[in-house]
Amino acid sequence: MSETSRIDPALLDGNRKQLAGYVATHFKWEVTNAVATITLNRPERKNPLTFESYAELRDLFGQLKYATDVHAIVIVGAGDNFCSGGDVHEIIGPLVKLKAPELLMFTRMTGDLVKAMRACPQPIVAAINGVCAGAGAIIAMASDMRLGTARSKTAFLFNRVGLAGCDMGACAMLPRIVGQGRASELLYTGRSLGGEEGERWGFFNRLCAPEAVLADAQKLAADLAAGPTFANGITKTMLHQEWAMTIEQAIESEAQAQAICMLTEDFTRAYNAFVAKSKPQFEGN
Amino acid sequence: MSETSRIDPALLDGNRKQLAGYVATHFKWEVTNAVATITLNRPERKNPLTFESYAELRDLFGQLKYATDVHAIVIVGAGDNFCSGGDVHEIIGPLVKLKAPELLMFTRMTGDLVKAMRACPQPIVAAINGVCAGAGAIIAMASDMRLGTARSKTAFLFNRVGLAGCDMGACAMLPRIVGQGRASELLYTGRSLGGEEGERWGFFNRLCAPEAVLADAQKLAADLAAGPTFANGITKTMLHQEWAMTIEQAIESEAQAQAICMLTEDFTRAYNAFVAKSKPQFEGN
Amino acid sequence: MSETSRIDPALLDGNRKQLAGYVATHFKWEVTNAVATITLNRPERKNPLTFESYAELRDLFGQLKYATDVHAIVIVGAGDNFCSGGDVHEIIGPLVKLKAPELLMFTRMTGDLVKAMRACPQPIVAAINGVCAGAGAIIAMASDMRLGTARSKTAFLFNRVGLAGCDMGACAMLPRIVGQGRASELLYTGRSLGGEEGERWGFFNRLCAPEAVLADAQKLAADLAAGPTFANGITKTMLHQEWAMTIEQAIESEAQAQAICMLTEDFTRAYNAFVAKSKPQFEGN
Repeated sequence: MSETSRIDPALLDGNRKQLAGYVATHFKWEVTNAVATITLNRPERKNPLTFESYAELRDLFGQLKYATDVHAIVIVGAGDNFCSGGDVHEIIGPLVKLKAPELLMFTRMTGDLVKAMRACPQPIVAAINGVCAGAGAIIAMASDMRLGTARSKTAFLFNRVGLAGCDMGACAMLPRIVGQGRASELLYTGRSLGGEEGERWGFFNRLCAPEAVLADAQKLAADLAAGPTFANGITKTMLHQEWAMTIEQAIESEAQAQAICMLTEDFTRAYNAFVAKSKPQFEGN
Repeated sequence: MSETSRIDPALLDGNRKQLAGYVATHFKWEVTNAVATITLNRPERKNPLTFESYAELRDLFGQLKYATDVHAIVIVGAGDNFCSGGDVHEIIGPLVKLKAPELLMFTRMTGDLVKAMRACPQPIVAAINGVCAGAGAIIAMASDMRLGTARSKTAFLFNRVGLAGCDMGACAMLPRIVGQGRASELLYTGRSLGGEEGERWGFFNRLCAPEAVLADAQKLAADLAAGPTFANGITKTMLHQEWAMTIEQAIESEAQAQAICMLTEDFTRAYNAFVAKSKPQFEGN
Repeated sequence: MSETSRIDPALLDGNRKQLAGYVATHFKWEVTNAVATITLNRPERKNPLTFESYAELRDLFGQLKYATDVHAIVIVGAGDNFCSGGDVHEIIGPLVKLKAPELLMFTRMTGDLVKAMRACPQPIVAAINGVCAGAGAIIAMASDMRLGTARSKTAFLFNRVGLAGCDMGACAMLPRIVGQGRASELLYTGRSLGGEEGERWGFFNRLCAPEAVLADAQKLAADLAAGPTFANGITKTMLHQEWAMTIEQAIESEAQAQAICMLTEDFTRAYNAFVAKSKPQFEGN
């Protein structure tokens, strides 16, 4: 063990968080073997978002940036659906009465949820069955990977409620996932993207059986959590950082970032395991 | 009705245009129920572009930015083909005799057509049957959505006439539509992309029967024109604006843009219709 | 022939190189009819890279920028595999003992290989059979086009050796080739992408028979070398330059670049051939 790793991490960063024991108010939060599962949990309404759940999700993802006991995240909806988006009565109703500054406060809050999801180091796997609409589709898109089912119905339905497709970063992110032409159609029409079509377009990484999609997502997350988690976090950071860089800038940024990873013990562990013809046990440092 | 909407729009913007009655010289222009159809109309030559049609298209799209009576646009070719690109005799012949400043004047003019197509707020649907080549393929790509047919043949054939694939923004736009590897092949080789392959790659949003592709495109455009057209214009603006932004910049830009849309009456109309279990009648304000 | 073309090119650029006769030390290098073939040539180890082969590749691609006798490049592995990436014993073993400045020197050297591959004007076609792993997968990705086989196995396996997916520009380039969601999965998991899946995702331009993939790649390269090679180089430059530009910037850049190409004799040759109903003979000037 190197000298560095013997220094108490708490001395280096007073912000380090332990979140396994967090008690969530507006959704379910469970942590097993460093894999957290967030369950949007109003199945009778297809798990809509409310002002409160938006804010709590934003704050929780903000804390996950500093969490040392959560290494991968699964997000799922209770019952047969993922998320129906912003609740019509609890969100849209109040919004139609607000003025510009308050509206901007709201749209910034929802955007801050996406920013926090992209800024935390843990890879996020969305398990998407049934309805995945509006802000729910954005949460799916802001995740790193998406497992769907044949009955997934993903709709960026902002247009249907009189709004633009530009919500929480959709006009930037969706084209990079499914291509500019397909993204344009989904955002202009608000039409539903089916599961098989979504897999074919690269929106879904793969389709699972509805009854298995949560377990499959948790298995994928567990595999990532058993890997070199510091390096995984750097992968996530760089996928985000390099979004709008030139290739030359990206290559220099990666040269620096990968050099940091080569200084981790996980890199040495992998080499030693290879030489010993064994499987490496990564520790995330 | 809010006070704002009672102010005569003409007082706010002397540039507001009515274009339904526009009489086009170098192509056909028809407006029905706020859906404009542009027909490239030299079917015996597969609808090539000329200096004059380039310039008229550029100017017309420039005016569409201010048009209040056109809410979606269809572009199609007369007969069995979309567009064969710049006419060899009427464009390439003269170009080989020009010097650098005049050539730049020409390439800037063609690029200005794409800029104008991206800058007007109306979504553009291209109905593409048969030959779609050179500048025709660029016009297809600069549209927001593309409906094809099994006999569509799309070729970025600049390479075949001794030129580079970088024409009117092709090296920027095509990779975002079909991916960098596929775009490279099309631009280096100038080979023809078939209809089914084009649908599989996301170049086409879907394939239609050749005899139905124009009507299908007009139906899609009419659906968009019946939607929240102010918000549709913002969707288009943001898809364009966020092309080379970071995700953080995109999210802030969308927070502002969507807040503006939440102030429209169309947003309130959609909410009221939802509560009344009826279909919203959008008015684009 | 214009006056310009009668000036000895050597007077204009003392750096002009003739590379057909280059004798490579750490791989095979052959040039036939202006098509160069680079063969990674340690088939018993699946053609791994070493410090020496990285450096020689970087330097050779750096010289290709000025070569006048090579117009397209094929890269292939000897035997049944493309490339197994950085050799575990010869590269990873030494790396685990290095400190930060030396590690950055290494990651910058590997990144410089990608920069040199993107900066030379010759289109690069990778012929990919069997294992294509780690830095091998990056070399494939840094090529302009990729021909695969049903038994291609492409793996960005940095994560498996304790590193991040951000290696030599992977987090920038892979999302633009296969989409952000699919790229994320490949980079987080290091899992193998099969040939058919790779074609479906746009990683491969097409699949070939294993025994034919090299010849097919050389045929494609020969076709490009017989085309307007100056214009091909501009296509490559612009695909690279426009990576992170706005659409407006890209259009202006293309207007300038294409105007230069319109001044070449190859453009005139193509026009004259069209008028004469013959096939143009391009000369790359």
